[in-house]
Amino acid sequence: MNTTTAPQVISPEQLLKHWQGHRALTRHVIEAFPEKDFFEFSIGGMRPFSKLASELLSIAVPALKGIVNRDAQPYSEEATETLTTKAQYLQKWDEATEEINLYFKQIPVEDFEKTFNLFGQYEFPIIENIFYFIDNEIHHRGQGYVYLRALGIEPPFFWTRE
Amino acid sequence: MNTTTAPQVISPEQLLKHWQGHRALTRHVIEAFPEKDFFEFSIGGMRPFSKLASELLSIAVPALKGIVNRDAQPYSEEATETLTTKAQYLQKWDEATEEINLYFKQIPVEDFEKTFNLFGQYEFPIIENIFYFIDNEIHHRGQGYVYLRALGIEPPFFWTRE
Repeated sequence: MNTTTAPQVISPEQLLKHWQGHRALTRHVIEAFPEKDFFEFSIGGMRPFSKLASELLSIAVPALKGIVNRDAQPYSEEATETLTTKAQYLQKWDEATEEINLYFKQIPVEDFEKTFNLFGQYEFPIIENIFYFIDNEIHHRGQGYVYLRALGIEPPFFWTRE
Repeated sequence: MNTTTAPQVISPEQLLKHWQGHRALTRHVIEAFPEKDFFEFSIGGMRPFSKLASELLSIAVPALKGIVNRDAQPYSEEATETLTTKAQYLQKWDEATEEINLYFKQIPVEDFEKTFNLFGQYEFPIIENIFYFIDNEIHHRGQGYVYLRALGIEPPFFWTRE
């Protein structure tokens, strides 16, 4: 992450675009679920997709706020507990999209390599934590694809990014 | 990706480590499947995990070879068609690990931003194609987690990277 001596391959702007592209796809996956199945359908004792979406919402903005403010407050899904309809999730998702744009841009490029104890629990370079958010989202969304297939619903194309 | 004017956040070495960390986790997922289920179990008409692993193997090394040699040969799963046991998949996986290390390091840092028509079909900057390989692997592996859960098998921790 040393911007003068070590050549690098992705800029903060590209990383933000990459993440938001994935978030756009996850939004389509939320939309694809029937209302009832979004909250109830699961396989093998796993969480329904609404709970996975709650996790993603509870990471993205709170984590970025924590990074920007160097505030190691613990992870909590409390703010998503009032969401009881798909429409509410989608609205929260869209609000998060704007907030992510806002906070992400407040991370100075030289800070990405700095270590921060995210949620008071994950002490890693900020860049690694951000990749973890994205990877975790792809992982859970992939699970959502199986739920949709099991429900007989065609998921969005994986390469959809808007 | 301009290494002199635009500050960047991840180096080629870090990106390779990131990918290989994910590949190590995917290897554990392959290992976790019972032999028969690896080739036969599926949900909702999806491919069994062996076929998803075939796809991942058919992308990684062939794609990197194509990038390094600027050879836009078409995508093919032919080289994985002879694999009929989990042990053979794991051996092929380990061979690919070494080959990925070899070819990845042959991509000059200034080339990551250059466009290449991967498999004669995906004309994007090389960095975007490489992120796509990783994301596609996380996506399909997430599906494998659901298969394992449906089989009553505890998958490896998501944060496992070796």
